[in-house]
Amino acid sequence: MRTRVYLDHNATAPLLPEARAAMIAAMDLLGNPSSVHAEGRAAKAVIERARAQVAAALGAEGADIVFTSGATEAAGLALAGRSLRTAPVEHDAVAAWTTPDLAVDGQGLVQVADPARTALQIANSETGVIQDLPKGLAVSDLSQGFGKLPIAFNWLGCDMGLVSAHKLGGPKGVGALVLRRGLDVTAQIRGGGQEMGRRSGTENVIGIAGFGAAAEAAARALADGVWSRVDELRNILETALESEAEGITFAGKATGRLPNTTCIVTPGWKGETQVMQMDLAGFAVSAGSACSSGKVRASRVLQAMGFDDVAAASAIRVSLGPATTEDEVLRFCEAWLAQYRKFRARAA
Amino acid sequence: MRTRVYLDHNATAPLLPEARAAMIAAMDLLGNPSSVHAEGRAAKAVIERARAQVAAALGAEGADIVFTSGATEAAGLALAGRSLRTAPVEHDAVAAWTTPDLAVDGQGLVQVADPARTALQIANSETGVIQDLPKGLAVSDLSQGFGKLPIAFNWLGCDMGLVSAHKLGGPKGVGALVLRRGLDVTAQIRGGGQEMGRRSGTENVIGIAGFGAAAEAAARALADGVWSRVDELRNILETALESEAEGITFAGKATGRLPNTTCIVTPGWKGETQVMQMDLAGFAVSAGSACSSGKVRASRVLQAMGFDDVAAASAIRVSLGPATTEDEVLRFCEAWLAQYRKFRARAA
Repeated sequence: MRTRVYLDHNATAPLLPEARAAMIAAMDLLGNPSSVHAEGRAAKAVIERARAQVAAALGAEGADIVFTSGATEAAGLALAGRSLRTAPVEHDAVAAWTTPDLAVDGQGLVQVADPARTALQIANSETGVIQDLPKGLAVSDLSQGFGKLPIAFNWLGCDMGLVSAHKLGGPKGVGALVLRRGLDVTAQIRGGGQEMGRRSGTENVIGIAGFGAAAEAAARALADGVWSRVDELRNILETALESEAEGITFAGKATGRLPNTTCIVTPGWKGETQVMQMDLAGFAVSAGSACSSGKVRASRVLQAMGFDDVAAASAIRVSLGPATTEDEVLRFCEAWLAQYRKFRARAA
Repeated sequence: MRTRVYLDHNATAPLLPEARAAMIAAMDLLGNPSSVHAEGRAAKAVIERARAQVAAALGAEGADIVFTSGATEAAGLALAGRSLRTAPVEHDAVAAWTTPDLAVDGQGLVQVADPARTALQIANSETGVIQDLPKGLAVSDLSQGFGKLPIAFNWLGCDMGLVSAHKLGGPKGVGALVLRRGLDVTAQIRGGGQEMGRRSGTENVIGIAGFGAAAEAAARALADGVWSRVDELRNILETALESEAEGITFAGKATGRLPNTTCIVTPGWKGETQVMQMDLAGFAVSAGSACSSGKVRASRVLQAMGFDDVAAASAIRVSLGPATTEDEVLRFCEAWLAQYRKFRARAA
């Protein structure tokens, strides 16, 4: 049996060895970070080290990093009760708290009227489309960009950012809200007053240690240029598919995208069917974002970009990782094209 | 140098080997539990296994287990917007959402008038005092009891329970809300619709795996009687101290307490001073609960029990664990009594 090929890195990335090592080391910490004794202080020190690592990786030195259980929780912390505007390309975690009335063009780019009242993602999870964030933006979901794009939070001119550990090789269930110094938020999870009163609850010490190590390692890999190679593989993939498959398009291809992401639109061939066929063939890809991928519905991101329902329902996302090989990409292309030909034969 | 002695298990317990092994195994899982492909389904299966383990350990088979980032988050999920009544002995995470107007007696027992409108803990973190939970209770914070006391959630007659992994040897940053089947809650963290729409956000797969394994191991240890031995050690500790130290009391000693907890009240000798002196001598104990232990204030739990401010400010909590030895307890007594004599000499 051939080994499986994981091409769903935007849903979640494999745990980096650096994160794994940091987490295993943190398992030996006895204390509660709120305890004043030596064991408590040692646990606290691990959290503060991770905070510095995340800040450095994000170019957010001097900004406040509030650790949360993920970008979803961070979104609520940044957005609840504020009625910010956004576009219908945001993740459900942002959509839950905002009004999606901003226009989106055919490449997925969002026109922002009032940055101070707007939440805008840095990159889309389904298409990889990168937004040009306007200065003075209230909130940006940075989770798909962090680790894959050079981000200097302090230079973005953005008040708050949302990040997630597991999108860059840290553990699932950890994230952070990044706040420009001097700003504050209303605590959503209340109690013991951890995280400067902004987020109560005994901290996920092991997970936070993994987040810090993963952020540091991901930033180093980014600086070392690993994503340029991934970008080339993504282009090899798209070229291979479009040379053989008629009528397919790649959503957002004409604009800047994450180096690892392609969103393949094959009108008439349901995305969920493709995901299952590829899964049986040994490839993990997705239709839509992971949170909604269990649900059967057309991608609202693609609908917002002007794709009709049939096209939007046909989209699949293939998202590569730093360890993806050319052989894996070519095997995917071969398997996908084999199914594509069957689809065309059935449709004919 | 003598090895340190950790006697602060109510703040957080060391990670059990079973939890550690389950977490390390879960690190190899590639997928996002919301993804439909094989990698996603494998991650989902680990969560569902842990859910069954937690339910079984808690005697909550058939009830709903909603995984959260801890008991603090679970408290908000159970309590926000409900204006339940409670007593001033609850943890800050419960106090944040409730009205503390119920009377507490000198042993820390709470008189409940209207169970359906009340939140009441099963056991107090600072004193170990166990409440006799009335039938029909709305919410119970079970976090200090789970793993140390036999609890059958299905027999408690309680609508909702709050539990935490790290109090019983699981990782910090994971917990759950337990719900009687048929009840529902308003999601506080919103987005992708995980946990049946009650708690969005990609799940902390590694942490949840650790919680499940820890709950199972803790339930087995409880059934095997490990806490009876701990109870004996706690009694040895109290007997050793009260035979040598005049004027000390143990809060709640006349009623049922957790087997591992003693709350030592030595009026005039500040608890925070004792914690620091013991820390320097190699022993981790605490003044008050861990979340508030960084803050300098008298225990409101003891104040509610009728202790005056001087007495309440003198309380320290010593909480043993299943691996605590008699030698450790006797060494603690020796070190504490040495400092006690100095305190008495200064006070004289």
